Amino acid sequence: MAMDGYKGFLALLVAALLFGFLSVILTIVWVLHYRGGLAWDGGSLEFNWHPVLVVTGFVFIQGIAITVYRLPWTWKCSKFLMKSIHAGLNAVAAILAIVSLVSAFDFHNTMNIRNMYSMHSWIGLAVVILYMLQLLLGFLVFLLPFAPPSLRALLMPIHVYCGIFIFGTVIATVLMGLTEKLLFSLNNPAYSSLPPEGVFVNVLGFLVLVFGGLICWIVTRPQWKRPKEPDLTILQPNGGTCERVEGSMAINFGEMDKSNSELNDETAARKRNVALEEATQRSTM
Amino acid sequence: MAMDGYKGFLALLVAALLFGFLSVILTIVWVLHYRGGLAWDGGSLEFNWHPVLVVTGFVFIQGIAITVYRLPWTWKCSKFLMKSIHAGLNAVAAILAIVSLVSAFDFHNTMNIRNMYSMHSWIGLAVVILYMLQLLLGFLVFLLPFAPPSLRALLMPIHVYCGIFIFGTVIATVLMGLTEKLLFSLNNPAYSSLPPEGVFVNVLGFLVLVFGGLICWIVTRPQWKRPKEPDLTILQPNGGTCERVEGSMAINFGEMDKSNSELNDETAARKRNVALEEATQRSTM
Repeated sequence: MAMDGYKGFLALLVAALLFGFLSVILTIVWVLHYRGGLAWDGGSLEFNWHPVLVVTGFVFIQGIAITVYRLPWTWKCSKFLMKSIHAGLNAVAAILAIVSLVSAFDFHNTMNIRNMYSMHSWIGLAVVILYMLQLLLGFLVFLLPFAPPSLRALLMPIHVYCGIFIFGTVIATVLMGLTEKLLFSLNNPAYSSLPPEGVFVNVLGFLVLVFGGLICWIVTRPQWKRPKEPDLTILQPNGGTCERVEGSMAINFGEMDKSNSELNDETAARKRNVALEEATQRSTM
Repeated sequence: MAMDGYKGFLALLVAALLFGFLSVILTIVWVLHYRGGLAWDGGSLEFNWHPVLVVTGFVFIQGIAITVYRLPWTWKCSKFLMKSIHAGLNAVAAILAIVSLVSAFDFHNTMNIRNMYSMHSWIGLAVVILYMLQLLLGFLVFLLPFAPPSLRALLMPIHVYCGIFIFGTVIATVLMGLTEKLLFSLNNPAYSSLPPEGVFVNVLGFLVLVFGGLICWIVTRPQWKRPKEPDLTILQPNGGTCERVEGSMAINFGEMDKSNSELNDETAARKRNVALEEATQRSTM
């Protein structure tokens, strides 16, 4: 069971990475081969950075960032280290997303195209702002040591859900953006005659969608959750480093709720409290 | 706690219904006021049924269909009745989705526009096919009485996840479709000058997105899950009717995992098994 769970996790992770990696590659090939390449000149070649940076940062890196806690080989690392990696990857994705916005606005301004008229731009800007708020709130509440456990417990399910919702909305926004760009750029032959570039970018849209579906599956499986912190802090008082922890943790991978067996001698009331606390703090989504 | 949980659930449900209802209304106002109305003539007025049927059926009714198990006042109803309602609403949504496809294809054929060239059409057709498969599989495995419990336990997390993934993909596809239609239809003034219709449909896109976000929040909260069936079948052997069940169920709304207290005198091994089975059968997502 433990090994089966581990193999299943690995297979899905590899599949997700493959779809994510292919999405990035296809986006780069698209702008280089079909859209004239990349430059930072205020023109359409600067705009080409927009899809490249969004798919690389806001899709692929964000997808990895929300998955890091679930990598079994990181369970021997401290929670603080993993939080730092999670926050760091999300910060990189945020920076790339901001630069991608600059490239789009620069292009519009140079070409005298109005900014912020399309649904893609409205939802896209909204999701970037939400992402920044999520990053800031996550940093203040979960990474800095000042927030009381009760506040963390209260905000954790919201943080997790908003993270997945933002990720899904980014993917929807990418699909809108690709649709827009094909309709703007493909004339003679038009998109409606389905030229090779149309097929190519439609496939890219599918890859991005499947990547999103795989990442969301991985991050919402209760059995693939990182084991609770208390076990770790007791076993490993040395904080931020990443050392082998001897014990049942790695072996128990794939087991549903090992904390249940630890509650063996407790009263029913205590059990309910723990279950409540657990579900609040470690809500899957 | 129980009452707080119930009020929170109700508030979010009312908010979701409001956003869903407004989405349907705005879609109807859009096609009637800005797009010339509705007809079944093979022309653009027939096409107008496409967004109306999709937003009404594939978004709003599907959103309600995936939420029905979580309505506390239905917990006194048999699981079979609720499954039938769940399947029935999804079947209605599927029929409306199919008719919406017919209206789009009819329009394209009349106007000599190529079918199935856009990303919207590719992902849209794929998600309709997935929805049909999900409906068929759900009917065979969960509604008909023939599937063994082990198969149901195995497929339940996949059924739940695919349901939410399909729902999210439908919303992404709606946003692509609205983007396409605005770019096709708005000339003089163009979409890029942000005429009233552009603002109107952008707002519609936001409403659909928020509706999706609220529904997904509601259906993924562990504390709002329908209590397990065994309690019900014991208390209520009369099957498909919907009668008041005296007991702690309604009062316990909002409590995390009441089955925990029932396991008081069991062995640790038994507890692990139940937890495993529970998590497999009742996976939130």
